[in-house]
Formats: sequence, structure tokens, C-alpha cells
Amino acid sequence: MLYSPVSLRLAEVERRFDRELCSELPVVNALCDRVRRYRGKMLRPTLLLLSGEACGEINDEHVTLAVVVEMVHAATLVHDDVLDEAALRRKQATVNATEGNKTAVLLGDYLISHAFHLCSSLNDQYASRRIGATTNTVCEGELMQVHHRGHVELSEADYLEIIRRKTAVLTGTCCALGARYAGASFDAVEAWERFGADLGMAFQIVDDLLDCTGTEQQMGKTLGRDLNLGDPTLPVIHALAQAEPTILGQLVSAWRNGRVASRERVRAWLEQTDSIAYAYRVADEYLAAARGHLATIPPGPSRDSLAAVTDFILLRQQ
Amino acid sequence: MLYSPVSLRLAEVERRFDRELCSELPVVNALCDRVRRYRGKMLRPTLLLLSGEACGEINDEHVTLAVVVEMVHAATLVHDDVLDEAALRRKQATVNATEGNKTAVLLGDYLISHAFHLCSSLNDQYASRRIGATTNTVCEGELMQVHHRGHVELSEADYLEIIRRKTAVLTGTCCALGARYAGASFDAVEAWERFGADLGMAFQIVDDLLDCTGTEQQMGKTLGRDLNLGDPTLPVIHALAQAEPTILGQLVSAWRNGRVASRERVRAWLEQTDSIAYAYRVADEYLAAARGHLATIPPGPSRDSLAAVTDFILLRQQ
Repeated sequence: MLYSPVSLRLAEVERRFDRELCSELPVVNALCDRVRRYRGKMLRPTLLLLSGEACGEINDEHVTLAVVVEMVHAATLVHDDVLDEAALRRKQATVNATEGNKTAVLLGDYLISHAFHLCSSLNDQYASRRIGATTNTVCEGELMQVHHRGHVELSEADYLEIIRRKTAVLTGTCCALGARYAGASFDAVEAWERFGADLGMAFQIVDDLLDCTGTEQQMGKTLGRDLNLGDPTLPVIHALAQAEPTILGQLVSAWRNGRVASRERVRAWLEQTDSIAYAYRVADEYLAAARGHLATIPPGPSRDSLAAVTDFILLRQQ
Repeated sequence: MLYSPVSLRLAEVERRFDRELCSELPVVNALCDRVRRYRGKMLRPTLLLLSGEACGEINDEHVTLAVVVEMVHAATLVHDDVLDEAALRRKQATVNATEGNKTAVLLGDYLISHAFHLCSSLNDQYASRRIGATTNTVCEGELMQVHHRGHVELSEADYLEIIRRKTAVLTGTCCALGARYAGASFDAVEAWERFGADLGMAFQIVDDLLDCTGTEQQMGKTLGRDLNLGDPTLPVIHALAQAEPTILGQLVSAWRNGRVASRERVRAWLEQTDSIAYAYRVADEYLAAARGHLATIPPGPSRDSLAAVTDFILLRQQ
């Protein structure tokens, strides 16, 4: 129901994605099959298509761009799994787990390259410029995150800046491209970009929360990664800010010595300090801003779907 | 002297490269400084500019594209060093050696992204399409190489296909872009592409030879990598083809068991089997084809420089 205004187009996106990755080399094709099985919620193509539909009519350029953003996303997943040494993704073994880091690094490169090549098939440079600027920022966000790994003193502002760069800028670009290629005005494109970015901020805050509070069965991927890797997330930053010096010292020392915290203990501690509820409140503030944008556009099935996507962010368990 | 027809433009390429990688994040800037220090022969920008100069006049688009191809090349170096676990590059410690694989993977992504973003600043999509198609092929070549790692039975044809994809397609694209953006005809652009590709084949064959026969002091990078990683190169393939079954069995078993062959012993074996001379002969055949192309273009300083680059390939010690 969430996707109904664009479900036919989404099926086209999937077919186009698969066709685009078809290589004459069997070894490359076998790897691309693995990427197909990672396919999940298709959040980014959905945002792009729904924004387009809300602003006018979806055309073939929207489908191409929906494939491009999903391919960029797939590339970040493949490289993230290398960076995080993850074994599981969408209930499947990761490429790095079965084929090694080398193949996974190259497969990610192959996906990035295909995304840009596909984008260059459009008649104008607008999308290539926006996608390039977006992936520049995404890489900066990821570099910032690795740089701050294990820094328990990471501020909430720095955390928000990292997730803005690594997640929200891409969801913002999805909505901006959807609007622009449906003929929206410059101002409208900017407003759609802010909507997508606010939604992306909320999505990432909740995604980080689920790393700590979700179950692996629901999520289909290795959890507790942020905790184990020393990436401070919003509830952890909130809890650390209130921790007594003795407890703080113990936590910092445990983290620095690479001792893996038990997810159950961390979860109990986050609940005691009201940190899970706090993180949900911050996510909800971003969603309120996103809903404010939706209120300004004409009612219709796309607006309803986008509202449903917005509501889904806080409710999702996977 | 080699670069004199385009030396001023090459200095502009270096400045533009540095400016393009400037980030507002200090942590990212520190990494980009490292990439600058990797700068070497600038073979790819030189080929692009000289081909342009030979076909007409060099313009600002040539400078932009010269930065793009050097950035694509820099990205492959950073990721290659991760794949090969190399410690040294241009007499400097590699990024993976000092900052870890995670940062090196992300830095490579950042360079690829910047290359495409810069390419999208041109007025038309021609270059973006060619660069995207080229990087698709480069990634396939690298994936093929990793797939065949340790396969001592790799055929000469498969070896040549790997280096065509991972090296020659990019040098071919450099020359094609140089010609095209100087207003060359469709046929001329195709001929320049073949010239660049033939040159690239010879360059890679010699580069692989130097991995075995060069000294680390001359080359400024970790050598013996192909041998240690089990990437069969042309002289090794040639020598293996003539090896007696007993010797072959010992070699295969040593390789499969990850025993690092001494470069001196391998070198002596390659000399006994005339395999080094054989590889130089194959490289020379590609250079002869490249020289055939040069003979068809009007004489002038750019043609002289390109002829000098062609001669340099066989003579280079670094």
C-alpha cells in the first residue's frame, strides 16, 4: 500500500537495475547476483519516484535515476560491510564474508562506476552534478565516522553532522531529483530536498537505535556493530552525557580496550537513562519538519504514500 | 623535454587537482595531502594533453579531463594498495599502512566520486559517458585479476585481457578524449584510442616486468607483489609454459602453499627460459602498432613527444 502509486515503476527499476549490471564476464555476473539479493526496502528509489509523482508525471528519466540512487546505496552497503567486518546482510552472507575483502572492495567500485555511467545516459548534466556532489559528501561523512570511531566524547552536533553527510544528503537528493525531473520550480526542488534530508536524518537515527534495540532475526543483519566498533550513536551520546564520572571512566576504558559491551547491558543502561526515548524524540522532530513540507503540497495518493513512509520510520522494526 | 609541449598545462592540472580535493573537513584534507604525494609520472594527463595538442588546440576542457583521468588513476592506486597489502608507494608509506584499510577504501571512493563530479562540470555528457564506460571495464579487469590470483595455469590470452581492461582501456580513453575535445573526427578519435590502448598494453607488460626485475629504490614501491600474491605475469606465464612437469609441480605447490618465491631465484629462472626477453618482445610489438599510428599524423612537437613517450616505455626503470 505504501508503494502503490509507484509500484509498477519500482518493478521497472528492479528490472533495469539487473539489466544494467549484466556483464560479459561470468565471474562478475556471479557477484552481481549477490548484490541483487541485498535488495531491501528500496527507500531511495521510492522517495525519488513518489516526489516525482507528487510534482507531475514520472518519466523514463525518473526510472533511470531511481536505479542510479539504489546503485549508489548498494555500493555503500558493500563497502560498509567491508569497513564494519560484517558477516550478515538481508539474512545473506556478505560478499566480504564469502569472497574476501578484495573482491568486496572491487564490487563496490564496480557499482559506483555503473551508477555514474548510467547517470551520464541522461540528456543533461544536472543529475550527474547532483549525484557527484552527493557522493562527495557521503564519502566525507563516512571518513568522519571512521575518524571518530572510539571517540566516546563525540558531541551530538558532530554525530548529527556525520549522519547528515552519510545518509540525509542522499535521501534529500532523491527527492530533489524526483521533483526536478517532473518539472518542479527551483524553490520547490529545494523544499523537496529539505523534506528528503529531514526524513533521512530520522531514518538514520532509528536505524542506529535498532542496531542496539532490534533483533538480528527482524533486521536480517549483524547487529551491535556500532557498539562493537566504537561508533557512538545518539542514545549512547545522551547516556554518556549523564553518566557519573566513575561509570563513565569504566565505560571509556572498556571501549578503548576493545571489550565488546553486551547489547543487553547497554540496552538496560540506555533505558535507565531515558536515552532510547530521547533518540526517538529527536527523530520525531525531524519527521515533524518533514510533515510540515508535505502539508504544503496538494493532496493525492503520492502525498498519502509519502506521509505513510514518514510514519513508518518510527514504527519500523527492520 | 618529454613533456615540453604541454608542461605549462600539466602544472595547471596539478594545481586544479589539488584545488578540487580541498575539503572543509580537516581530517579529509590531511588524507588528500597524502594522495598529492603519490603523484608520479602523470602519464595519463600527459597522453590526454599531447593527443589534444596533436589534433588542434588544448582548451580548458582538456585540463579538466586531465585532472579527471589522474584522479581515476589515483583512486585505483589507493584501492590497489589495499588489495595488495602494499606498504610503500612512491617512496612514501601507503594510506592503508598508516591509516588502515577502512580509511584507504573510503579515500579511494572519495577520489572516484570527485573524478565523476568534476567530469560532470563539462558542457556535454560525452566525457562522462566515456569515463563511466572505462571505469566499468577497469573494475571488471581488476575483478578478473583477483579471481585468477594463484591460477598458475592462466593463459597468455587471459593475462592480456586482464591488462587490457585494467590499464589499456584507460590510456586509450585518455588519447580519445584529448583528440575529441580538440575537434578530431569520429575516425580520428577511434585511431587515437587504439594508439593509447597499444601504449597502455606495453606500459603494463613492462610495469609487471619491473615488479620482478626492478629495484625498490628505483621504483619507490613494494616489489615482488605479483609473485607474492600469485598474479601470473607475462614472463612467468611464458616460463611456466616451458617448465618440465617436475619443476612445474614444485612451483605450483609452492605458490598454492603461499610460500613466497625469492625474486632473485625467479629472475634467474626467467632469464634461463628467455622469458624476460620474450615479454619485452611482446611489449615492443604493441609499441610498433602505436608507432604506426603516429606515422599517420602530421609532424610537430606533440608527435615528437608522443614518440619519445613510446620509446620511454621500454627504457624506463621506474
